[in-house]
Amino acid sequence: MKLHELIQELRESHSTKIVLLVADGLGGLPRTPGGLTELETARTPNLDDLAREGVSGLSIPVLPGITPGSGPGHLALFGYDPLEYRIGRGVLEALGINFPLERRDVAARGNFCTLDAEGKIKDRRAGRPTDERNREICQKLQSVRVPGVELFVEPVSEHRFVVVFRGDGLAANIDDTDPQAVGVAPLPAVPRDEASRRTAAFADQFVAEARRVLQKESDANGVTLRGFARYPEIATFHEVYGLKAACLAVYPMYKGLARLVGMEILDAGHSLNDQIETLGRVWQQFDFFFIHFKYTDKTGEDGDFAAKVRRIEELDGVVPRILDLKPDVFIVTGDHSTPSVMRSHSWHPVPTLLWGRHVRTDGTEEFSERACLRGGLGQFEAKYLMTLAMAHAGRLGKYGA
Amino acid sequence: MKLHELIQELRESHSTKIVLLVADGLGGLPRTPGGLTELETARTPNLDDLAREGVSGLSIPVLPGITPGSGPGHLALFGYDPLEYRIGRGVLEALGINFPLERRDVAARGNFCTLDAEGKIKDRRAGRPTDERNREICQKLQSVRVPGVELFVEPVSEHRFVVVFRGDGLAANIDDTDPQAVGVAPLPAVPRDEASRRTAAFADQFVAEARRVLQKESDANGVTLRGFARYPEIATFHEVYGLKAACLAVYPMYKGLARLVGMEILDAGHSLNDQIETLGRVWQQFDFFFIHFKYTDKTGEDGDFAAKVRRIEELDGVVPRILDLKPDVFIVTGDHSTPSVMRSHSWHPVPTLLWGRHVRTDGTEEFSERACLRGGLGQFEAKYLMTLAMAHAGRLGKYGA
Repeated sequence: MKLHELIQELRESHSTKIVLLVADGLGGLPRTPGGLTELETARTPNLDDLAREGVSGLSIPVLPGITPGSGPGHLALFGYDPLEYRIGRGVLEALGINFPLERRDVAARGNFCTLDAEGKIKDRRAGRPTDERNREICQKLQSVRVPGVELFVEPVSEHRFVVVFRGDGLAANIDDTDPQAVGVAPLPAVPRDEASRRTAAFADQFVAEARRVLQKESDANGVTLRGFARYPEIATFHEVYGLKAACLAVYPMYKGLARLVGMEILDAGHSLNDQIETLGRVWQQFDFFFIHFKYTDKTGEDGDFAAKVRRIEELDGVVPRILDLKPDVFIVTGDHSTPSVMRSHSWHPVPTLLWGRHVRTDGTEEFSERACLRGGLGQFEAKYLMTLAMAHAGRLGKYGA
Repeated sequence: MKLHELIQELRESHSTKIVLLVADGLGGLPRTPGGLTELETARTPNLDDLAREGVSGLSIPVLPGITPGSGPGHLALFGYDPLEYRIGRGVLEALGINFPLERRDVAARGNFCTLDAEGKIKDRRAGRPTDERNREICQKLQSVRVPGVELFVEPVSEHRFVVVFRGDGLAANIDDTDPQAVGVAPLPAVPRDEASRRTAAFADQFVAEARRVLQKESDANGVTLRGFARYPEIATFHEVYGLKAACLAVYPMYKGLARLVGMEILDAGHSLNDQIETLGRVWQQFDFFFIHFKYTDKTGEDGDFAAKVRRIEELDGVVPRILDLKPDVFIVTGDHSTPSVMRSHSWHPVPTLLWGRHVRTDGTEEFSERACLRGGLGQFEAKYLMTLAMAHAGRLGKYGA
């Protein structure tokens, strides 16, 4: 029996409220063996209190040793098996900019690049244009027409845009045209199956037309495409859990992930402070709140241990404001680890705490990787986090007589 | 490969004996965060010794966050995946009173109720008749005939009885007629599929005839039916493990669960003392002994923390008598947690200890939730407990060359 069917069978109505605070890339590593991680270094009195009163553990986003991207990492936290639901980059980007994607569409992430006179890539990001410049170039791209398919081009940020191919009979099993290297020409769009042949041809035509339209630009005179994808078949958060869910994210990607599972995407401003203010404002209207904090990941990817520590402390500072709203279940976790010593996502299990009624306390005295290792949740697959949240929120009945 | 097939392939004959002592609803919660649970409060010198010499852990009956009923909880302990084998209430009740259920039968749990002049339920349990009174009313019900189907009515206890419909082509996908509320009339038996339509009609006729037969009773003048179910396809304990297994339970439900997997149901008396005496008497005749202790669950459901503590201490008292028999493997666990602060079953993992030869001791000094959290079995799915028992009993060979 599938987990979602089981939850649908057992779930019960209740007025309880659940907060899921995701510190992106929360887990870390010490700078020297045996030393302290970012989370262990940070002064986090509020999170430590939560850990003391709650139950802790380490979540495994996908499988031991598997490093997740943002998509699988978040799907797992939302209770969707990340090995079952595979979401392409193009779809994520389209969802992140609020593009009204249809199920028949094929979306791809586009990058503006700078090509030299021989058509070889000089700069894979076209000198990182401003967002305003990005919008300007995208406007030009919007004039591109390809016979037989409807096209949409939308700016994302800097050198990034989304292209959507709309029509019947499209398919997305197509290799990236981005060679991920300079000094070589962009690749053709190679279909990996018969069904994707026609769509790949449309993509090639789009790229050729784009070069024609952009030929006078000095910086962004070419485009590459990656992550061709179609909208997945996925049950909504409300269908699975019966929860009215709100997303309070700042970055497009995470809005996109929340929209994918049918959360309502709120305008949560541009900072953690804005997000928490929004939370207070909409508190009565929803059962579930997904708050996304990007900067623990960003600082980790920058390799800036001290900055990640500061960002964790910033997050700790808003905990009392969330508690003031009196959530029934409050979870703090990450979608994966991003150790600053690695400057990248990693496979290491993610510190997680669950606070609420009827938790079995576990003697944990602080929120840290080593304390979580001894925590009552043990090491668990992230896809069960929502089941635990539902149970502690009194929203799951008994299985079997 | 399925777990049972693997065990069947690897199992080896041996003369070792395994005792599975199930303290129903054993796991608990502290009354205040960070406090002691029932098990942690109880004085359990004998269980503590077992934990010290054995290996401990926390078992997850179904999945993280899922609260099991008695059926799934016990099936998991017996090594049957509770998500694969779903046993309806009617079948459990029928098995529990030793009714010789056939595979073509449909069984339902019946409740006597009191109806007012308008046919609405005044008391869902008919004033909780005595068992003797129950037998009397059941005798009247046994005169009911429904054309086209054979009927059996058997008393369980108080207001509870079992009705079995016997005939070919019956099906059990039928909604409960018990509205689980007073002030409303019992519901009709609504079939959820075409195959169950005829059986539902038989059920409705039975209920109508029952009302006619009982119309002169002041208390039990109506019946409701719930948990329509058929006997599941399930391999016996002997087929899976090659064990000759005995059940020493007092309550019908647990005898029913043991019979379901083909254990021999012994008359184990009415008390823990009776059960242990029976154990000594039949020790030579079986390889495996399932001893069920109900009162850790009952006191938890009553919300009586102190009484649950006392019941745990009562259980501790019989441990030396079991050890005197020299079991090779001795397991103490529960089918789920029943924290007295929740007055209900819960999803929390269950304290478990396994004592026997070749255990890898783990430094555990006592039998308690927090000690089990550090135990050598870790947090494990309950369905693997029997595999561990078989291994420690020297009854499982090597997998692969």
